[in-house]
Amino acid sequence: MTPDEFRRLGHRLVDWIADYRENIASHPVMAQVAPGEVRSRLPADPPERPESMEAVLADLDRIVMPGITHWQSPRFFGYFPANAPLAGVLGDLVSTGLGVVGLSWQSGPAVTEVEEVTTDWVRRMVGLSGAWSGVIQDTASTSTLVALVCARERATGYGMARGGLQAEPKPLAVYACAHSHSSVDKAALLAGFGREAIRLVPFDQAYAMRADALEAMVREDEARGLRPCAVVATTGTTATTALDPVGAIAEVARRRGLWLHVDAAMAGSAMILPECRWMWDGIEGADSLVLNGHKWLGVPFDCSLYFVRDPEHLVRVMSTNPSFLQSAVDGQVKNLRDWGIPLGRRFRALKLWFAIREQGVEALRERLRRDMRNARWLAEQAEAAPGWRVLAPVPLQTVCLRHEPPGLGGEALDRHTLGWAERVNRSGAAYLTPAALDGRWMVRVSVGAEATERADVAALWGVMLEAAEVESRGPRSIG
Amino acid sequence: MTPDEFRRLGHRLVDWIADYRENIASHPVMAQVAPGEVRSRLPADPPERPESMEAVLADLDRIVMPGITHWQSPRFFGYFPANAPLAGVLGDLVSTGLGVVGLSWQSGPAVTEVEEVTTDWVRRMVGLSGAWSGVIQDTASTSTLVALVCARERATGYGMARGGLQAEPKPLAVYACAHSHSSVDKAALLAGFGREAIRLVPFDQAYAMRADALEAMVREDEARGLRPCAVVATTGTTATTALDPVGAIAEVARRRGLWLHVDAAMAGSAMILPECRWMWDGIEGADSLVLNGHKWLGVPFDCSLYFVRDPEHLVRVMSTNPSFLQSAVDGQVKNLRDWGIPLGRRFRALKLWFAIREQGVEALRERLRRDMRNARWLAEQAEAAPGWRVLAPVPLQTVCLRHEPPGLGGEALDRHTLGWAERVNRSGAAYLTPAALDGRWMVRVSVGAEATERADVAALWGVMLEAAEVESRGPRSIG
Repeated sequence: MTPDEFRRLGHRLVDWIADYRENIASHPVMAQVAPGEVRSRLPADPPERPESMEAVLADLDRIVMPGITHWQSPRFFGYFPANAPLAGVLGDLVSTGLGVVGLSWQSGPAVTEVEEVTTDWVRRMVGLSGAWSGVIQDTASTSTLVALVCARERATGYGMARGGLQAEPKPLAVYACAHSHSSVDKAALLAGFGREAIRLVPFDQAYAMRADALEAMVREDEARGLRPCAVVATTGTTATTALDPVGAIAEVARRRGLWLHVDAAMAGSAMILPECRWMWDGIEGADSLVLNGHKWLGVPFDCSLYFVRDPEHLVRVMSTNPSFLQSAVDGQVKNLRDWGIPLGRRFRALKLWFAIREQGVEALRERLRRDMRNARWLAEQAEAAPGWRVLAPVPLQTVCLRHEPPGLGGEALDRHTLGWAERVNRSGAAYLTPAALDGRWMVRVSVGAEATERADVAALWGVMLEAAEVESRGPRSIG
Repeated sequence: MTPDEFRRLGHRLVDWIADYRENIASHPVMAQVAPGEVRSRLPADPPERPESMEAVLADLDRIVMPGITHWQSPRFFGYFPANAPLAGVLGDLVSTGLGVVGLSWQSGPAVTEVEEVTTDWVRRMVGLSGAWSGVIQDTASTSTLVALVCARERATGYGMARGGLQAEPKPLAVYACAHSHSSVDKAALLAGFGREAIRLVPFDQAYAMRADALEAMVREDEARGLRPCAVVATTGTTATTALDPVGAIAEVARRRGLWLHVDAAMAGSAMILPECRWMWDGIEGADSLVLNGHKWLGVPFDCSLYFVRDPEHLVRVMSTNPSFLQSAVDGQVKNLRDWGIPLGRRFRALKLWFAIREQGVEALRERLRRDMRNARWLAEQAEAAPGWRVLAPVPLQTVCLRHEPPGLGGEALDRHTLGWAERVNRSGAAYLTPAALDGRWMVRVSVGAEATERADVAALWGVMLEAAEVESRGPRSIG
């Protein structure tokens, strides 16, 4: 493709995206295709000869678009907000257009230095002290894996330089909560810890980890000959945005010599609001934390911000220094390949830089406050409506609720919950995510797409009322 | 940013990228900034109020661009080709504009299914049998980490479900070569193996792993009470594109029960050429392999293609299944979160799909053949020039060479090599990468940027001759 063809087609695709965002509410929020439908429309073999871009763009509309679930829709209330503001899209376009790979400082100095500056902007925005250093990873799953490997290596005095985990005499243990994100388990297992080494700490009525229970477990495990190594606390759990008591957990971690990693992947964005900072009081006692720029904050996926207090330790664990990556300036610069798993790195800081500058922090704060007000409004409607119940506190933007028709319980209630939720999703009018809580299904409404206004939440509430009503009337008839 | 502002600014940035690519040869290839220079021009604090996009774009030109090393330049001969063809840039633009996150099939069915189809296209392009299944990871570092974790779990019969690596009675061992990529070491260390568990197999005169030496080491280690677990063979090493004998290594792996992972990150692209397939003869005996779409093949970074023969094993090692990700169709679909480390996933298959369709496989083959001819041409010039030496076979597109003025050896020769290479890089006329070989510095010329034609390689050769000549005349005076 020549630059001139790129000009023509690029303008067209920019307009295509602008049209898409303008008319996004006209799409059913959840893709309506059946499994295999998209695949079946694509040829099994790659083309030998060039195809016209006309054909490609036609297939984009005809084949791909029906298979898209619209995360940027104002009626998207699923999983978590993954906002991709248009300014961030432009920043990412520049990154891809430059095609620069940041595998060392020298291979693209601006890749490293804009990342240093913008991650430090976020540090200031969320009120962390200057003792923290940031780097962009792809996702919180990866950030947490990096954290647990670093914890492992601190506990073992760099066992990786010797016999590795296998050579450690005392079994290491990692502490989390049943409400921690699935990526915590996964990270611990990938890091070699083993299921038996993952200790689940009891939680309180608000689904937050109990620091006293953590300390008791740690002492007990020590007495049993285990070596407690790390604890993962969550600021804003996935199911209910529960808030683990970071300060009290940090105290335990300090006393017992544990690495404290704080998973604030979703709720960390809210720390740009001074009135929310109490939610992670004590955060300065943590060793590492993750906050996803690509969630509520509004940087196009992927942009997971990983902060550490001891970057030298991180670099010692992650560094490789093959000859072909060495350069004359190595003593004076950061080589961010040594701050994470991948060697090659995209220029992801550009989208963060574009997004923050175009909006300004004040506007970001106002958007988050809007979303929290909308979530509370929805919770109030549900609390006031007969048969509806709000199941957990709503400190942020997630509302957990259930419609409980009289006489319905147990598995019948589960069927009802999944039934009306699926009616909502299949209707295309809105999208939300069921999840389990205390062994029963409930529905999470995650407010916070950039485009979501009060009217959208009100419309969702109407759709939910209707879907639950229809579902109450008879067996699930949707196919 | 409204869709209309996005239209206006998007058109402008598309033109900016088109202009950049048209005039890319006018930039010094290596960024000429000093450490800290980009950072010092950026404010320490994020803006409270919105800034004009005019200001952002002005800073892009004024602050960022001087800090870019131009990987897409026709005179870029560093590291490896990381081609980002403009059609792929468009595919990536669509991905970011859609802002869809593929954390389950349902969250974006097309994200999963276009990835299934396009990775299968690549499988067919490189002549792998239908026994392989592909998935996109970010980088080869991650792909290799996934491979070694899978190897660990196969060897231990899913020890992760019990006590993890620590509970294994026999120390596991991983085999690689001193010429394997640094990411192999790193992956093994992150997976918990420990430095002592990484066994370096001797190599032959062409820097390829010796299968006989591998087998001898494995037998010896078994006799010592170790448990050989995995071997990583490389098709096209980083320093010299050496070709480990995959077939013979696969035989050893089969006999000794090792997991065979093949790192074809760079050279795997060449397997689209039937005349190159001998280079990984025996590949069907491997368990996993990585081939980076974002290198020579020409998909904008990041797009690392990871292929496995036993996807069920991969899923069993990587899967998480929290309630909020479950859906009614789970039995009928792939959930690619269970094929790698991150939960969230970009729609990276779009750029692969755009790039292959726009070019067609035939044109890709011709481009790779052009690059191989250009590399051989350069090797011939060096072989014919007094004082120059080609240090390794040139099976693909990398030429390893040294200028050896009479009487210069040892560290003086190293200083000379690093000196002239840095002269080339600092001149801005071309960019290349020194690397160590047999304990001495040499220079790698990695041919294969999309824009690189014979004239560019000829110009590089001229610049090298001159830089080496100037460097010979006196002490290094560049500063």
